[in-house]
Amino acid sequence: MFITLEGPDGSGKTSQMEPLAAFLREHGYDVVTTREPGGTPISNQVREILLNRMENTAMHPRTEILLFCASRAQHVEEFIRPQLADGKIVICDRYADSTLAYQGYGHGVDIEVLKNLLNFTTGGLFPDLTLLLDVKAEIGLRRRQKGGEEWNRLDAYAVKFHCRVQKGYHQLVEDEPHRWQVIDAEQSPELVQKEMQEVILNFLSNQNSIN
Amino acid sequence: MFITLEGPDGSGKTSQMEPLAAFLREHGYDVVTTREPGGTPISNQVREILLNRMENTAMHPRTEILLFCASRAQHVEEFIRPQLADGKIVICDRYADSTLAYQGYGHGVDIEVLKNLLNFTTGGLFPDLTLLLDVKAEIGLRRRQKGGEEWNRLDAYAVKFHCRVQKGYHQLVEDEPHRWQVIDAEQSPELVQKEMQEVILNFLSNQNSIN
Repeated sequence: MFITLEGPDGSGKTSQMEPLAAFLREHGYDVVTTREPGGTPISNQVREILLNRMENTAMHPRTEILLFCASRAQHVEEFIRPQLADGKIVICDRYADSTLAYQGYGHGVDIEVLKNLLNFTTGGLFPDLTLLLDVKAEIGLRRRQKGGEEWNRLDAYAVKFHCRVQKGYHQLVEDEPHRWQVIDAEQSPELVQKEMQEVILNFLSNQNSIN
Repeated sequence: MFITLEGPDGSGKTSQMEPLAAFLREHGYDVVTTREPGGTPISNQVREILLNRMENTAMHPRTEILLFCASRAQHVEEFIRPQLADGKIVICDRYADSTLAYQGYGHGVDIEVLKNLLNFTTGGLFPDLTLLLDVKAEIGLRRRQKGGEEWNRLDAYAVKFHCRVQKGYHQLVEDEPHRWQVIDAEQSPELVQKEMQEVILNFLSNQNSIN
């Protein structure tokens, strides 16, 4: 069972993942968590190039996308697939949908071109279930800011960009409604966690009754 | 004018490139040379991951292809396009055709999938002229070997692989005959150089008379 967490910046995905995994383990499920970009030694070397923004200011958007994909291809083959083959539930913080939401809907790269690229990258491995932690762009960005900072021009650009990302996520949900579950991430972290737990337990027990 | 040199291992491309550039400069052409993978600081960081075979033994073939593509995307945007825009003739040792010949025809990755990936990677920049330094797999591989080494099982695999690569190059020539010129690279290096010079001078003077 391959489960991914998606959502705009400030949606709280990352801090929700470990409590969620712990909850599922208490219910007897064998769960591993991982995140992108990274997860293997080679992926981490690629991650270093991606994060070295000081030296690599000249990085072209297509280079960035291809590096994310290289890191993901390795992560899939060296970590995710073996864990799934071993019967584990894998929960991954961001996956292919992030590329569609950010580079596709956010930055305007052609969605069909990206889908072909992601199909190649993942060798056709897509999640069984994806939780969208849904939060309005302004709220997500404000959570990321230190309190009291003024709203500047960069922020105005950032809000527009993150609005496109959020709309992109909604489009992805519309395209594949059976795969997605939308969680209202504007609630308190405790309520978000509770909703995530219910959705996943429900999904897993349905799967068990099918199998 | 964007010119690429292609050919199996041991075809002599790399040692022919600089004399060729020097010859064209003597004839008044403004020429820069470059090679893949590499050519920019970011591409060189990617190249280090690709060449670090001791540590990165677990690299998946798709990861390798995507890293080559990431390096190429950056090389295209940061080096090749600006040089071409500046009126230079760019000669590049290996380019997208190497991915088709080696990963596609050599390792059996789907050619149409690779073509889509290469179209994205290069942003649609393909060579005006490509020289294939054509050499039979066994001859190319023997040139790479130190004299007197015995032919072992690895070599038998290598010969089969390089036969597929060579046939792949022939297929690429057949698919786009107007772009390719085939040079007999089993001749002496001096004769190969002479043939390359003639082919390129002829091509450039035809271009000038068209423009």
